Amino acid sequence: MKKFAVILAGCGVYDGAEIHEATLAMLAIKKAGADYQCFAPDMMQYHVINHLTGEVMPEKRNVLVEAARIARGKILPLSDFDASAFDVILFPGGFGAAKNLSTFAFEGEAGTVLSEVASAVKAMFAQQKPIAAICISPVFIAKILGEVKVTIGQDEGTIKTIEAVGATHVQTDHGEVLCDHEKRVFTTPCYMLDADITNIWDGANGLVKAIMEYFKN
Amino acid sequence: MKKFAVILAGCGVYDGAEIHEATLAMLAIKKAGADYQCFAPDMMQYHVINHLTGEVMPEKRNVLVEAARIARGKILPLSDFDASAFDVILFPGGFGAAKNLSTFAFEGEAGTVLSEVASAVKAMFAQQKPIAAICISPVFIAKILGEVKVTIGQDEGTIKTIEAVGATHVQTDHGEVLCDHEKRVFTTPCYMLDADITNIWDGANGLVKAIMEYFKN
Repeated sequence: MKKFAVILAGCGVYDGAEIHEATLAMLAIKKAGADYQCFAPDMMQYHVINHLTGEVMPEKRNVLVEAARIARGKILPLSDFDASAFDVILFPGGFGAAKNLSTFAFEGEAGTVLSEVASAVKAMFAQQKPIAAICISPVFIAKILGEVKVTIGQDEGTIKTIEAVGATHVQTDHGEVLCDHEKRVFTTPCYMLDADITNIWDGANGLVKAIMEYFKN
Repeated sequence: MKKFAVILAGCGVYDGAEIHEATLAMLAIKKAGADYQCFAPDMMQYHVINHLTGEVMPEKRNVLVEAARIARGKILPLSDFDASAFDVILFPGGFGAAKNLSTFAFEGEAGTVLSEVASAVKAMFAQQKPIAAICISPVFIAKILGEVKVTIGQDEGTIKTIEAVGATHVQTDHGEVLCDHEKRVFTTPCYMLDADITNIWDGANGLVKAIMEYFKN
């Protein structure tokens, strides 16, 4: 049975992992006959956003502790991740990917990637295993791997960032999956487009199916 | 187009709305060609649970503000709910249903229901519109309506509570939906059983399909 590591960046679109993308990726993995283990970095969130008003709240929350809400407590610190124990690494989106796992939300093309995330992606790449990223997460995959083809949909500012770090962007629409078969990198835009939850299912399920298809070849 | 009101109790299985049940109910509604609007009570959570350790955290969080994480900000206070604007009311599960929307987590058969929740359910019942509840939520539907058939799966303690408040419990297994057609109450156990996320999809999707089928007759 193929095993996915799902890396969460908190719990909530504006300061953590996008909940629908994370949940629907997990559903797609199990429906494909594979299994998953969730991970998140044990660190404080960049900030806490009130998801009703969009304003910053005067609170401190931990990425791993909040991500455990999506994982129903079954989650490990990202420092425990061992590439040899997994077949695929998958990153849902949400601003947490660009605020906690990396700094692209604030620094654009000067953004940096959390060392634990970069190490995990590099280890999977070195072992020639698939790397999957949803929504905004392809930005840090581009930063880590450099020459790779990814998609975040159609957002011009983010496309510029991806090209500035040496990667190639391919425009996609709702539910489409971009496969860089040479680098084994699979990406899909989901909520980087003005989507509804059925588009997220199409994207997440299509992503997982493309990876399972890759394993057959 | 049929419109569902989805009532959330926060964000996270141990102190709020169960995230998978809420997300997959929303997906099932849209895939069935219907639409939804999320609501939550504007009140403080009973408490905040660290979902990694299971321990109470020394924090205060608001049910509506946290539920907005699942709803991506598109949520209204439950006090704004108007039964005449909706075709169905649906309650996902999670301990928040038994800690915030009602007190059954602490008081068993002496549990009480938040007045805004009881009013919303009674208004839908009076207008002869379907009432749907997942996981633990059928307990407070039983308390509000009294003589009604519901399921929470197979948990003996919870079944006793349901029978003590005057309702009838019917045992069900993964993915099964119980329909009380006379009272228009639709329930499914989801994570009240030892389930995985594919069982939750089967339950939530089956629940929504049963309601859409009801509208055809």
